[in-house]
Formats: sequence, structure tokens, C-alpha cells
Amino acid sequence: MLVLPQKIRASTVADQLCLTLVGDDVLLENVAPVEEAGPQSLAYLQSPKKLLTRPGLLLSTTPVEGCSLLLCPDPLLRLLPLLSAWFPEPPASYRPVEGAWVAEGAVIGRGVQLSPGVVVGPGCTIGDDTILFPNVVLMHGVRLGRACRIHANSVIGADGFRYHPGPTGPLRVPQVGGVWLGDEVELGAGCTIDRGFLGDTRIGQGCKLDNQVHVAHNCSIGRFVLIAAQTGLAGSCQVGDGVMIGGQVGLADHSVIGAGARIGAQSGVHGEVPAGETYLGTPARPISVMRRIYASLPQLPALLRRG
Amino acid sequence: MLVLPQKIRASTVADQLCLTLVGDDVLLENVAPVEEAGPQSLAYLQSPKKLLTRPGLLLSTTPVEGCSLLLCPDPLLRLLPLLSAWFPEPPASYRPVEGAWVAEGAVIGRGVQLSPGVVVGPGCTIGDDTILFPNVVLMHGVRLGRACRIHANSVIGADGFRYHPGPTGPLRVPQVGGVWLGDEVELGAGCTIDRGFLGDTRIGQGCKLDNQVHVAHNCSIGRFVLIAAQTGLAGSCQVGDGVMIGGQVGLADHSVIGAGARIGAQSGVHGEVPAGETYLGTPARPISVMRRIYASLPQLPALLRRG
Amino acid sequence: MLVLPQKIRASTVADQLCLTLVGDDVLLENVAPVEEAGPQSLAYLQSPKKLLTRPGLLLSTTPVEGCSLLLCPDPLLRLLPLLSAWFPEPPASYRPVEGAWVAEGAVIGRGVQLSPGVVVGPGCTIGDDTILFPNVVLMHGVRLGRACRIHANSVIGADGFRYHPGPTGPLRVPQVGGVWLGDEVELGAGCTIDRGFLGDTRIGQGCKLDNQVHVAHNCSIGRFVLIAAQTGLAGSCQVGDGVMIGGQVGLADHSVIGAGARIGAQSGVHGEVPAGETYLGTPARPISVMRRIYASLPQLPALLRRG
Repeated sequence: MLVLPQKIRASTVADQLCLTLVGDDVLLENVAPVEEAGPQSLAYLQSPKKLLTRPGLLLSTTPVEGCSLLLCPDPLLRLLPLLSAWFPEPPASYRPVEGAWVAEGAVIGRGVQLSPGVVVGPGCTIGDDTILFPNVVLMHGVRLGRACRIHANSVIGADGFRYHPGPTGPLRVPQVGGVWLGDEVELGAGCTIDRGFLGDTRIGQGCKLDNQVHVAHNCSIGRFVLIAAQTGLAGSCQVGDGVMIGGQVGLADHSVIGAGARIGAQSGVHGEVPAGETYLGTPARPISVMRRIYASLPQLPALLRRG
Repeated sequence: MLVLPQKIRASTVADQLCLTLVGDDVLLENVAPVEEAGPQSLAYLQSPKKLLTRPGLLLSTTPVEGCSLLLCPDPLLRLLPLLSAWFPEPPASYRPVEGAWVAEGAVIGRGVQLSPGVVVGPGCTIGDDTILFPNVVLMHGVRLGRACRIHANSVIGADGFRYHPGPTGPLRVPQVGGVWLGDEVELGAGCTIDRGFLGDTRIGQGCKLDNQVHVAHNCSIGRFVLIAAQTGLAGSCQVGDGVMIGGQVGLADHSVIGAGARIGAQSGVHGEVPAGETYLGTPARPISVMRRIYASLPQLPALLRRG
Repeated sequence: MLVLPQKIRASTVADQLCLTLVGDDVLLENVAPVEEAGPQSLAYLQSPKKLLTRPGLLLSTTPVEGCSLLLCPDPLLRLLPLLSAWFPEPPASYRPVEGAWVAEGAVIGRGVQLSPGVVVGPGCTIGDDTILFPNVVLMHGVRLGRACRIHANSVIGADGFRYHPGPTGPLRVPQVGGVWLGDEVELGAGCTIDRGFLGDTRIGQGCKLDNQVHVAHNCSIGRFVLIAAQTGLAGSCQVGDGVMIGGQVGLADHSVIGAGARIGAQSGVHGEVPAGETYLGTPARPISVMRRIYASLPQLPALLRRG
């Protein structure tokens, strides 16, 4: 949920988009994913589905009961210029600190260790005793907890990768959310943690990520999760507490990994892994199933010849 | 095709290599891949094949009709020192600009946004309104279009990965080509786009690459291509307009992806994917085929037991 | 093997850990992996196994003949605070050199080329004529040979990824070893080579690594090894001379690749690959076996239907 720089009337939004307001002229205070929207929220619904919330104003392709509406064929396309206008990338003015560059307005805790080549963007907050190794980049608005260790050349808060078909090619969907890391999070070298779209990308307390791990926009990772090198999480994955993920694993967008689950190296997960289970392979399956498949494969050619 | 710093006679090349010139003493103006060679080109042919071009001078293992020849058992090995001598890495003298380092001779367009830690090498050109986020590195001679966004810690123009067996170990093949990016190209954080060997690595207008994507030397990517995180393209791949490639995909060298094709996450492509098709898996196959295979695999162990 | 900052009595270690010394009060000079331990070594044994060495003092869960002992249920857990105390990360004081930052005490050879944004940590040594491209980071104590080329944004000597279960979450195992690269080693852009735990991570003479390669702690790579892009080696892998590894390959920890072996792209290796063999797939098998499996897979669904 993103608080608007100033409250705005539904009728004003309608005017800006040249659309007809259906319903009350509510006063909007924030922009929110439709699942988190409240009576002061502007939200959008790209395709019809049953809603559990009632946003104050909904950009929608079809009528929805109980909220003011702006009807149009492609709600997200309409929303893009508004998001860019309301939440522009903040201008940055950097000052040198011990070989690092720190933007005006960044808040650096006590005992924080910066290193040469580190860049801390505007609006960042860094908890006490956190260490940023050389050439780490925090884009604007990134929030790090206490006693984190971020290894060299990692990037936190770059744009999430989301594009929307436009009339002349893919249009960038402004990534106006942030990134939040809890206390005692450790990132290896060369990691990339993207900022969220309308909310935050979150990595919980005590998580440890190896080198070259990629975490996409709006992922939510619980506490004490271990992720080995070169693994990538696509957008909006949910990973429970204590999960262990091997190296070079891929999680498709919106995957859900239950607490305490384990994912073997090089697996490709699409969908859900139940809590406590161990999955392996592409597509990932329970490890006992996958091991039997792996053991059987060399016999397949002979079976076909007999077949 | 690389223009020589000064024209050179075929006989001079022969003398430098201690080889015997067979044919006319042509005046050479460039070095070119044999497929693109013309009457002023020096080219090499590592193993016999039918040529559609007639280079001015050909380093070859076997005689070829219609061009001057230098015959030797390992033409590329002979060419390596000449390439290093003719196209040395340019010396760089950097000046600080807003926390960035810009080499003398680089051409920076209007409205270009540099950031702390950015390094722009000699001979680079950057189109108007392009943004380079912190710690982006452009090696020498990289050309970026207008309104590109290059996220933090990406590297454009490092050496392509090509080695040739030498008497005492692998010899580096000098990567003397460049990198060209069209307008409105966006690269995520931590990407690596290598320079070409004798020509350019090219990424067309409006392409969007996610974080940690690797594009090897001499790849040619069309317009409006989307590539998700941690995907790697080996050398000389050709990717058509509008292609969409999932995360953690690998394209073997010289793969050809037709316009509008889609490649599912974690696929391994070797060879050709027809335009408009969707491929999945390793080795990649049409998605319907691969899905049937994935669905069948869990039944294989039982099938073998029934035998 | 790590030499202690000063010799220490076994009884002193026992006192510090509140454990009872069983055996002689030996004078300890180093900390070593149990396989490399000698009579002046402190070592630990996390689970019972047959030892070929006799450490001076062994932290162990069960009695072992022929060495002094400290018995406890979780030897590594006990060792962690001692390692942190004996081998702290050295403080770094950097001075600017040509846009780079070089720590006091680093030894830079003749003809070494630094670039803007390079960071050289305390205690590093760089051999003559080595080139560090922009934004390369060498953490403390990294040793590079002669005539190496380290491309932009690579990181050498970050912490290895090793955590040990502790009472309130995973505890970092201090990575107190180093990194050693031989002469003429070339690393691509965005590589990460982690420091070792009790010994060094080693990459031999003439090795060539492509972009975004990850080498974990305590790997030992022989001479003239070629590794293509986005490949990852987990901890303690051993790779013989002249091995060639394709792109996006994963080697599980403690894998052993014999000299001259080849591993196809995207393979997942667990265990051993014999010298001179070519392996492919996940799990990796001899290439002829894997190719037959790949060729057979499309016929599996029909075979199941015939039942």
C-alpha cells in the first residue's frame, strides 16, 4: 500500500483519465493491490474475479458491487502514467563518506560500516551495526535491519521486472514499492533484490542468501531462510520460515513454499510446496518421487526398444 | 567487420606471418568474418566449407578459388597476434563526473544521467536521456541508444569468452568488436553483455532484460525482446523481434530463435526455435510435447517394474 | 591450515571452552581441517570417522586414540567463537589510487593495471602485469598471480556460505581462509570467488572463467580449466587440469572432476566424474547415456498409453 503524496478525489482521477466516474466521489489516500485495498484506496482489477475487499475506487474492466468504478478495457495501462506522476524516482544528491556515496536524507545507524564504492540512495535507512561491503548499491527507499552483512557488488532496490503491452512495445510498470530486510540478514556477493510494485519486497530476520541470488519484486521471505548460490525467485513468491533452498533453483512467480520445506539444487518450482516437505527436480516433485524417476531414466531407452 | 587502422598489402601480412602469398597482392582495408568478407577484407577459414563470399585475402587450411591465399594448418592461431597488434585496447584516462568516471573521448548525450561509481570507457557513445545507475561499467567503444535504463552493477563490453588451443594452454582470442544497444533498452542489475569478436553484439530497440542476464559475444537480439532473470545466451545467438524468454534459460551458441517465439523458464535451447512457437525443457521441445513428458515421468518407475 | 597469531596450550583452549582436557597439554600452532592436521594442530571432528591424521588437539563427539581430546556434543559450534577471536577481519584503511581504493599493506606488483572503482583489501598481493577492470573487489588477503585479467564487477574473497544450526537460528561459520589464483587466470565480469573456511579456495594457472561464474569456499581448481558462464561450484569441489565445463552447470559440494573431463551445459553433477569422460544432464551421466535418454523421452507418453 502506497500513501499518496496528497489526498485526491475519485472525480479528479476520472478527469485525468477521461473516464466516467460511476459511484461516490470518494477521497483517496493510497494506492493498493486490490487484495489489500480499503475504502480510501485506489486499486485496479485487470480481469474479473471475486473480490474480498472493497476499494474506494476501482479501475476495472467490468462492474463490481460496492465500490466506485472507472470502467476501461485495460486498467493497468491507465494506471501507469498516474503512478509515474505520483511516485517519481526521487532526485539524489550524494555526498562522499569514506569512499562511499550517501544520498541526502539517508539514515545510517550507529556502528554501520560503509566501504569504498558503496552507494546509499535517498530515503534509505540502515540499522545499527550493519556492514555494507565494497560497491554495494542501495537504491532509493531501501530499509535494512540491524547487524546485516551485505557482500560486495550486491544491488538492493533495482526496478522489478514488469512490463505491460503498450501500443508501440512493452511499457515499464513503475516499481514504486520498496525493499525491507530484517535484522541479521546476510546477502552474498552479486545478489540482486528488486523493489516491489505497489508493496515491499521483504526478507525476514536471520535469512542468509549466498552469492548471485536473485529475488524479484514483491517476494516475501520469512525468517531464517537459507538460499544457496545462483537461485532465482520470480515475482511475488512467498517463502515460509526456516526454508532451505539449494543452488541454481528457480521459483516461478507466485510460488508458495511452506515453512521448513527444502528444495534441492537446480529444481524448478511452480506452485506450492507443502510445509516441511523436500522437493527436487524440474518440475519439482517430492524428493522420493524424483529420485525414482532419476534412477529409472537410464532404463527407458532399452524399454522402448523392447516395447 | 573491423576497419584496419591503415590499409595493408596482402604481401605485408604474408611477410609478418612468414607464409607464402598465393595470388594477387591485394590492398586490405578491413578484417571480417568470412561470411561478411569482401574484396578488401582479410578473413580466415578454420576448416573447409563452401564459401558464398570471396575475401581479398583468406587465411585457410586448404586452397579456395577466387581469392588470394595464405595456407597454414591453424589460421585462427596465426591471426591472433595480428588482431592484438592492429586493435589494441585503447588506453583510458578518466575524469570524475558526479561520482562517475568518464574516459576522455566518450560522447555523452543530452539529459544522460550518470550515477556514482559509473565507469564509461574510451570511445563510448551514450544516447540522450539514457540513465546509468550506480556502478554500471561500459568498457571501451560501447554504443548505447536513447532513453536506455541500465541498472546498477551491470557490465557492458567485457571480453567475449573465446579461447583457442595454443602450445602451452588456451590462448585468448582478442575480442575486438563492440556492443550496440538500440533506443529504450533496459537492462536489470548485474547483467553482463560481452563485446563481439570481429563484429558487434547487438540488442535492438525496446528490449528489456531482467537482472543477472548474460549475453555473450556476437549475439544479435531483435526489437522488443523480453528476457527474464539469470538467463544466459552463449555466443552468436540470433533472437528475433518480440521473443519472450523465461528465467534461467540457456541458449547454446549459434541458437536461432524466430520472431515471437517463447521459451519457458529453465529451458536449454540448442539449435533453432521456429517463429511463434513456445518451447520448454532441456533439451527444449514444443511445450505440448514437453508437458506430456513431464506428466508421464512419475509413471516410468512403475512401468519398469511391470517391465 | 591457519597459523595461530600466537601459540596456545591445549589447556588454555579447554579453559576457554569450559571443557575437560583428556590427554597431553600440547602446544598448538595452527588450526587445520582434520584431514590435514598435524601434532601442532587444533582440529575438530563433527561426527565419528576413521582418521588418517593425529591432530595435537581434537574437538570431538567421541574419543579418538592418539591425540589430546576435548569432548563435546557439537564441536564446530564450540569452535566458532574461537575462530572469530583468533582470526578477526582485519580493519581496512584505504587510499585512493587512480580512482581505485587500495588498503594499506596490500602489495601491488609491477605493471599492475588498476581501474576506477577497484577495491583492494588489506593483505592482498597482486602479481605483475595483472589487470583489474573497473569495480573489481578483492576482499582481504586475496593473492593473485601474474598476468591475470579480472573483468569488471567480479568479487574475490567474499565469505563462503556456511552456517551452523545455533540456538536461535543459523550461525555464520567464520570464513578465515583465503583465495589464491595462479598466473594468467582470467575471470569474466560479475564472477564471485569465495574465500575458504580453514584453507584456501584455489584456481590454478591459466584457468579461464566466463561471466557470472560462482566458485564457493575451498574449491580447488587445477590448471587450464575452462568454465562457461553462469556455472556454479558448491563448496570443496576438486576440478582437475584441463577440465572444460559448459554454461549454467552446477557442481554439488565435494564433487570431484577428473583431469580432462568435460561437463555439458546445464548439467548438475553430484559426486565424481572420471578423468577424460564427458558428462551431461541432471543428474549428470556419461553423454552417450544421457543423449539416449533425451532421445527416448518423447516416446514415453505413447508407451504409457499402450501400457
